[in-house]
Amino acid sequence: MDLWFSEYHQDGVKLSINVDREIVSCQSDYQNIALFDSKEFGRILTLDGQLINTEKDEFFYSEMMVHVPLAVQPTIKDVLVIGGCDGGVLRELEKYASIETIDVVELDEQAIQICQEYFPKNQETFSDERITLYFQDGLKFVRGKEDAYDLVIVDTANPFGVNESLFTREFYGNCYKALRAEGTLISQHANGFYEEDEEAFRHIRQRLTSVFPINKLYLSSVPSYAAGYLLFGYSAKTADPETDVQSEAWEKQAIRTRYYNTDVHRGAFCLPNYIKELL
Amino acid sequence: MDLWFSEYHQDGVKLSINVDREIVSCQSDYQNIALFDSKEFGRILTLDGQLINTEKDEFFYSEMMVHVPLAVQPTIKDVLVIGGCDGGVLRELEKYASIETIDVVELDEQAIQICQEYFPKNQETFSDERITLYFQDGLKFVRGKEDAYDLVIVDTANPFGVNESLFTREFYGNCYKALRAEGTLISQHANGFYEEDEEAFRHIRQRLTSVFPINKLYLSSVPSYAAGYLLFGYSAKTADPETDVQSEAWEKQAIRTRYYNTDVHRGAFCLPNYIKELL
Repeated sequence: MDLWFSEYHQDGVKLSINVDREIVSCQSDYQNIALFDSKEFGRILTLDGQLINTEKDEFFYSEMMVHVPLAVQPTIKDVLVIGGCDGGVLRELEKYASIETIDVVELDEQAIQICQEYFPKNQETFSDERITLYFQDGLKFVRGKEDAYDLVIVDTANPFGVNESLFTREFYGNCYKALRAEGTLISQHANGFYEEDEEAFRHIRQRLTSVFPINKLYLSSVPSYAAGYLLFGYSAKTADPETDVQSEAWEKQAIRTRYYNTDVHRGAFCLPNYIKELL
Repeated sequence: MDLWFSEYHQDGVKLSINVDREIVSCQSDYQNIALFDSKEFGRILTLDGQLINTEKDEFFYSEMMVHVPLAVQPTIKDVLVIGGCDGGVLRELEKYASIETIDVVELDEQAIQICQEYFPKNQETFSDERITLYFQDGLKFVRGKEDAYDLVIVDTANPFGVNESLFTREFYGNCYKALRAEGTLISQHANGFYEEDEEAFRHIRQRLTSVFPINKLYLSSVPSYAAGYLLFGYSAKTADPETDVQSEAWEKQAIRTRYYNTDVHRGAFCLPNYIKELL
């Protein structure tokens, strides 16, 4: 059987991956969840037909979401992850002995169950004692929090559908309150390459800069993502991720990574002109 | 009509672009040349069915091939471009008043004719007085040259088919001889993301390091390329592109770019761990 999964980057652009078979396909209370196996990208997770994660390249994304803030603030102890059912961000966080608690807020319990069952490495990741799972809406969860976290990671797909409430000014404002005095928020910003993404990018950017005093963008290659790269937002109360990065301290911890290193950290904040012009 | 052009990154991975129509399709003495128009990527050039260049993102590639060496060595006067029928690299070179001659060696005269006719900006690019066109095999052309160029840019597609001779030890050795005492060679290295590319990458790398004393790699996003990024080789007789970059001198020239800037220059040499491991 010649079976192709296609991810539409735009109406007129799609990335297609030849897949062996569909492993799971189910409709949860919130979305369609499907998993495929493929030769080139390994196991693939899709939500509502959108490519969320592939075994082959999720480390590009997960490592850049986690190690950038941790290299700036080694004192991070309490972390909130919104979304992140696929476990990649959690796996990277768990590499830090200094992290004490990881709260994970995911709306869709079934998505987490499926990711635990079908991504073998996740068994271990989700059983780390520092993790507490909350099956709730992210916006509602952060509403009541104050001074509770050192780092919030918003690990979600693009700002459409189920995730829309996680890209609002209200949500970012609540994250600000939930963060301690030196807290940091990491979010994904799409990339601005296609016109539609440009709008999403500006939308997120405006809301974040109205809430946080420090807002920097960094860029990483993510091969399976539209246009092959992704912009991440580093929003903070006090720390500048370029000048305050503690490279030596990070390297001393000897954390094993496949993508991130402190050179990549510096390089990721060097943005091409066409992206600077979007700002 | 629903017409899609597909670029196979691997047997099991393809990027497809919805195209309005095929503008040209002809068989030259060397290859099939086809042009398409598309909403998302503008005009597209393909050679033997392989995506060579799109209006939307060719500046990522062309700017990174040209401005990186020119920012390191503002004294570059005589340039040899092998390939480059699409004109992007030539357009960027022409921005430097300091460049005196640009020799362009392209095997396929018809490819250049078609690119001149169907990419409107190319009319101007190819009529620059500093340009001399040679319709020859690149390997043969450089064989007789000695001490003739400050910069050689090998602007070719992957090391298969027509271009194979441009990825040999003999070719790189001849480029070395053709370069002056402070000369530099820029080449494309595929990217090592897919297994097949990994082999091409190692192949090119081995040959270059056996010829040039300085060999550094730099990385750029190129959305339409396999995995969305490309590695470039900076091979030089004397200059180190990281420590010898003359950022202030480059900025003083006020050259207009859409991708390149001197921050991007620094950042491009910061390689992820999985690429360092390939070296």
